[in-house]
Amino acid sequence: MINKLVSKIQKTNAPIVVGLDPMLSYVPEHIKEKAFKEYGETLAGAGEAIWQFNKAIIDATYDLIPAVKPQIAMYEQFGIEGLKAYEKTVNYCKEKDLVVIADIKRGDIGSTSAAYAVGHLGKVQVGSRTFSGFNSDFATVNPYLGSDGIKPFLDVCKEEKKGIFILVKTSNPSSGEFQDRLIDGKPLYEHVAEKVASWGEEVMGDNYSYVGAVVGATYPEMGAALRKVMPKSYILVPGYGAQGGKGKDLVHFFNEDGLGAIVNSSRGIIAAYKQEAYANFGAENFADASRQAVIDMVDDIATALGKK
Amino acid sequence: MINKLVSKIQKTNAPIVVGLDPMLSYVPEHIKEKAFKEYGETLAGAGEAIWQFNKAIIDATYDLIPAVKPQIAMYEQFGIEGLKAYEKTVNYCKEKDLVVIADIKRGDIGSTSAAYAVGHLGKVQVGSRTFSGFNSDFATVNPYLGSDGIKPFLDVCKEEKKGIFILVKTSNPSSGEFQDRLIDGKPLYEHVAEKVASWGEEVMGDNYSYVGAVVGATYPEMGAALRKVMPKSYILVPGYGAQGGKGKDLVHFFNEDGLGAIVNSSRGIIAAYKQEAYANFGAENFADASRQAVIDMVDDIATALGKK
Repeated sequence: MINKLVSKIQKTNAPIVVGLDPMLSYVPEHIKEKAFKEYGETLAGAGEAIWQFNKAIIDATYDLIPAVKPQIAMYEQFGIEGLKAYEKTVNYCKEKDLVVIADIKRGDIGSTSAAYAVGHLGKVQVGSRTFSGFNSDFATVNPYLGSDGIKPFLDVCKEEKKGIFILVKTSNPSSGEFQDRLIDGKPLYEHVAEKVASWGEEVMGDNYSYVGAVVGATYPEMGAALRKVMPKSYILVPGYGAQGGKGKDLVHFFNEDGLGAIVNSSRGIIAAYKQEAYANFGAENFADASRQAVIDMVDDIATALGKK
Repeated sequence: MINKLVSKIQKTNAPIVVGLDPMLSYVPEHIKEKAFKEYGETLAGAGEAIWQFNKAIIDATYDLIPAVKPQIAMYEQFGIEGLKAYEKTVNYCKEKDLVVIADIKRGDIGSTSAAYAVGHLGKVQVGSRTFSGFNSDFATVNPYLGSDGIKPFLDVCKEEKKGIFILVKTSNPSSGEFQDRLIDGKPLYEHVAEKVASWGEEVMGDNYSYVGAVVGATYPEMGAALRKVMPKSYILVPGYGAQGGKGKDLVHFFNEDGLGAIVNSSRGIIAAYKQEAYANFGAENFADASRQAVIDMVDDIATALGKK
């Protein structure tokens, strides 16, 4: 799947991923009204509203982008009905041949970690048959529990040719509280990155590993250092746009081959119509605003990488 | 909710929690056969099997115990149908007045962390109405992202009088890879524990905080140290039984008031009928075997705490 991700990034010339993190407040009124008319102001109504919102955005952008990253929390908050919208979104993106990065940040140990891996990337056994729970291509994983939490994911990745992105240095202001603390003269995130590189050696694709890392766009100087520690790991870069990361900051996350990083934008794309720059589209044409925001983001990054 | 947990522990005289982590391999054949007959060998069949398995164990033990800890991964692996079984289990335990600790180990930032908090402990807004997604009493949370990940949970806990258990030192063999590394002369887990204590000060119940910690039974000497660092935090102790933790190891996790810790056993209780010690119950009476295993566990801990 890492090979497919790289090839799709090359084909689209767009090292970006659209974060499908729909808050109900992002969903235009006309979509909500229709959903609530059908299902009432219920969890099912909320699920329908975010699914229809996602679908329109996917339809308007799928030809421009290699991948999407649905944030499962935004669905899980609506319980089962929200998770049905999550499932529909994942399956629809796969139909559109998009690479799906499940932003689940799971992390547990042994058989529990295996259950998450199987549930999101693999197949679960029921009697004599096997099924996919949530059928995504990559998942984000938390490293706090060490190798016992990662190994079960590696086993599933090997079998299914899928991948993970391990949290190394997150984009939020307080990420330094633990991640930046020095251990033997090096910050914790660098120790995690070294592990990412060594876990990744076991599961190599053609040029990059099945094991990638999450490093926030908001910490470009750390991105530059981490790029060198994990040369074969794709870096998933959140924090661009709404969180303050700029195109010029991103250059450090890429390798000299122009690959090695994929930049996420969520709000900046899916709620583009709410920004001044795209207000002229109007709420009715929110998906067209998202398409334009994708074009502008790809342009911003291409300029920063000196490709224009 | 921490007050309720403490009072239920005092009433039952059982500082234990039953981990509802049903693997299909734990479920006796007669339960699986019935479920598969009704739903086929499908995800729905698997969901029905684990729900019926749980229900029988809850019915056989709820009067002896203060709390249960369903491990969501074991349900999530079966997709939507598994999560329906999770929801039914949580709701049924609440009906039985058990305190429900959702073992979800979520961890994210800002609005995403808030979505998890709302989804598992709070209420989500849909138009003019509010709903509970998954209505549990406590949730386990991963600290790797720092305060930005914890604060949204504290806000919901304050509003709903619910609580969290933050991963400090986990029970698995490789937990030391990052958690034990020394920072300014102290292991990372101790730095996390200090944060747990300070986050906890904001949300105090009568004697204990809404913010607890997870510390594995497999590391008793660390438990002793951590008990002192977080005197007002309840410690959720996994790793007893199947993972190797013994009753006598547990004494260090308790305060002098005999409170302050709640010990989890999953496999040791729910799959008791598969152990030699309880084989005489037979698979048909698996729930009675679980009841006996609860009684024996309570006894083991009481002996260790010198209460017998």
